[in-house]
Amino acid sequence: MTSAVDAPTTFDLGPARALSCRECGHQVPLAAEFACAECFGPLEVSYEFGPITRASIEAGPKSIWRYRDLLPVPSDVDTHPNTQPGLTRLVRADRLGKALGIRDLWVKDDTGNPTHSFKDRVVAVALAAARQLGFKVLACPSTGNLANAVAAAAARAGWESVVLIPSSLERAKVLTTAVYDGALIAVDGNYDDVNRLATELASEHEDWAFVNVNVRPYYAEGSKTLGYEVAEQLGWRLPGQVVVPVASGSQLTKVDKGFRELGELGLVEPTPYRVFGAQATGCSPVATAFKDGQDVVRPVKPNTIARSLAIGAPADGPYVLDTVRRTGGAVEDVTDEEVVAAIRLLAKTEGIFAETAGGVTVATVKKLVESGKLDPDAETVLLITGDGLKTLDAIQDHVGPRATVPPSAAAVRAALDEPGR
Amino acid sequence: MTSAVDAPTTFDLGPARALSCRECGHQVPLAAEFACAECFGPLEVSYEFGPITRASIEAGPKSIWRYRDLLPVPSDVDTHPNTQPGLTRLVRADRLGKALGIRDLWVKDDTGNPTHSFKDRVVAVALAAARQLGFKVLACPSTGNLANAVAAAAARAGWESVVLIPSSLERAKVLTTAVYDGALIAVDGNYDDVNRLATELASEHEDWAFVNVNVRPYYAEGSKTLGYEVAEQLGWRLPGQVVVPVASGSQLTKVDKGFRELGELGLVEPTPYRVFGAQATGCSPVATAFKDGQDVVRPVKPNTIARSLAIGAPADGPYVLDTVRRTGGAVEDVTDEEVVAAIRLLAKTEGIFAETAGGVTVATVKKLVESGKLDPDAETVLLITGDGLKTLDAIQDHVGPRATVPPSAAAVRAALDEPGR
Ligand SMILES: Cc1ncc(COP(=O)(O)O)c(C=O)c1O
Ligand SMILES: Cc1ncc(COP(=O)(O)O)c(C=O)c1O
Ligand SMILES: [Zn+2]
Ligand SMILES: [Zn+2]
Repeated sequence: MTSAVDAPTTFDLGPARALSCRECGHQVPLAAEFACAECFGPLEVSYEFGPITRASIEAGPKSIWRYRDLLPVPSDVDTHPNTQPGLTRLVRADRLGKALGIRDLWVKDDTGNPTHSFKDRVVAVALAAARQLGFKVLACPSTGNLANAVAAAAARAGWESVVLIPSSLERAKVLTTAVYDGALIAVDGNYDDVNRLATELASEHEDWAFVNVNVRPYYAEGSKTLGYEVAEQLGWRLPGQVVVPVASGSQLTKVDKGFRELGELGLVEPTPYRVFGAQATGCSPVATAFKDGQDVVRPVKPNTIARSLAIGAPADGPYVLDTVRRTGGAVEDVTDEEVVAAIRLLAKTEGIFAETAGGVTVATVKKLVESGKLDPDAETVLLITGDGLKTLDAIQDHVGPRATVPPSAAAVRAALDEPGR
Repeated sequence: MTSAVDAPTTFDLGPARALSCRECGHQVPLAAEFACAECFGPLEVSYEFGPITRASIEAGPKSIWRYRDLLPVPSDVDTHPNTQPGLTRLVRADRLGKALGIRDLWVKDDTGNPTHSFKDRVVAVALAAARQLGFKVLACPSTGNLANAVAAAAARAGWESVVLIPSSLERAKVLTTAVYDGALIAVDGNYDDVNRLATELASEHEDWAFVNVNVRPYYAEGSKTLGYEVAEQLGWRLPGQVVVPVASGSQLTKVDKGFRELGELGLVEPTPYRVFGAQATGCSPVATAFKDGQDVVRPVKPNTIARSLAIGAPADGPYVLDTVRRTGGAVEDVTDEEVVAAIRLLAKTEGIFAETAGGVTVATVKKLVESGKLDPDAETVLLITGDGLKTLDAIQDHVGPRATVPPSAAAVRAALDEPGR
């Protein structure tokens, strides 16, 4: 293949106009690049938006493609086979709010996506951009959810996929990647090892789109749709506070970017909001930097049950710090025990079964309220970005049938009258 | 509690007007009844519909409640905390269609529901009706998916739940019920044993709504929404053929009822369609009766990996036979090997990971095409009603990483160059 980089002006990526360096502002034409040639800073998509109204969005597809005019994708994006992610439930969470002491609480339940995590959003945008850029293979290093999303999206599109995972990954995430029949490779190492491998392989295979490496600028924009949907589902309004789990940190910064764009385009009142980040203590490099007042994030070796968040060297860590400090938020971390308790609390109060990452978010909210950092009276949205069915090991020693009985009504009655049994 | 049966005229169940016997036509007022006092036949909800337009539906919530005027629920149903199921993706399935030899194929992907099966639909309707009827506890016997849905819906609503399951159930379905913290009881027996127990317990506890026993007439109506959504998502049109998995048989008959109602109300052209049923050979009492030309369904002892369909004595079996024969369809059954192959085929071609019940449906479609019973040129919709993450055991010996390698690019390259390895 001749890399699309040779003829940059021919790409139809909708309203996207250039890639610009987050560090030095240097601009380059749209292409399959991800690092600034001047300073090695990360590149980000910049846009020239056309006229966009609430009505034009509301008349669009019931998926993230209703926001296609705000994404680096062509306007006919939905005519290519894709997984149609997004437009997941925003759930009023009064029972959880009561348990946590928050008056006005919402849960964005992204477990309803095709492969049951928010990664379907970013992968759908990455695939659409990769198609325009001339790639033929969809690839990624992954902590699990991304693996599922890439393998599924590639299968649906009829693309080949190459997915690299740490060999220690949860059984559910391995099987639900393998079933799509792409090339799944387990690597004896942690995510940061796998990520380094991916960077090396990306430079060797110019027709492989590693969604979170060489097409990362496009991929990352997919998380803006979480921000857009929250605002639209609140009735075209920004919440006062939003709490987001942090692995690489991309999602958090893009939810903020989405909110800002809506304000700038006049689609919502640009009311102030605060962005909070959530990490597991066993992998909390961003929380640590936040608490220490640092601008740089020092890599750690992850050790937590929240494996989907176990990125020890988070690429967007510094931008998370920027966002959180600019908006008056915070980054907090919670123990694995708190994560399990929070998974159970969310399930019991709202009927939503989140994976460990969701437990991290709920537990962080609890801790932030208790420490007074989160305003209990402000409208608050928390993002549940992955599904409990993928991390059953986290709860298996904690929940189970109340009793196992022979098939007689008397036995059932006895079991129910003795709840402790 | 005083049973609502004492004052039948006070219930607001929207357009529902009475319960009428499917066998003898005898009518009774709306109440928590399920069997005809005259002939013991099953009772079904009958309606007096108000004016309903496509526009009024399209302006409604993005959930099954957009069809509230066609369901036995009050018009304010969505103001009570509920799981907001439905409006799942209808996916154009060209790659699967090509593999199966069907020109015009769609997959209704109900794995996007809150607990990832169609059972969220029926449970949401049952809960809404049970609230009106004065019940206080949500209960069920279940083959798994119903357990998940009842436990989650009760948690979200702040109701207590009592859920009875066979103790042999898949680990994922047990854990993802238990996590919601209701009363989960495992019974040493098969589903038919558990179901008998539930009937006994229902008669003893008048404030327990066993969704699929004593409020079954309301519950069952929830499956009509699958039919409504398919028609709306096709652009207010009925498909030529629909293929539905059969356990108790309720869902299949209600998809048909939904299609008929839309035609009668002028919301779609009442074009002819054929309804097909899908069973696993290890539990195929309805397929057997169909092939033998019988009207009665002889109970069997289930033995199949498709445990969610393992109902040996299907309550609605005779009505499945009626529907299928009236519309010119068929009931077919497939082996467990065919089920696994079909799960993999659907995943590989469309990026949708179904549970064993979905494998049954896809494998049945294949068999029906091969035997000439399904018209390969007619527009066909198949229902994927449950999620692969809940039945991982079915595929675990069949799929996995292509290789496990040390963290070196050379090792990954070697593994990829040797796909058979
Ligand atoms: C469920 C879940 N939530 C949140 C994240 C965080 O994403 P990011 O890397 O954008 O911070 C991940 C990343 O894998 C994830 O799997
Ligand atoms: C995934 C799935 N599909 C289909 C069915 C069939 O439902 P019915 O009992 O209405 O035939 C069930 C029943 O449990 C199920 O769990
Ligand atoms: Zn730069
Ligand atoms: Zn009767």
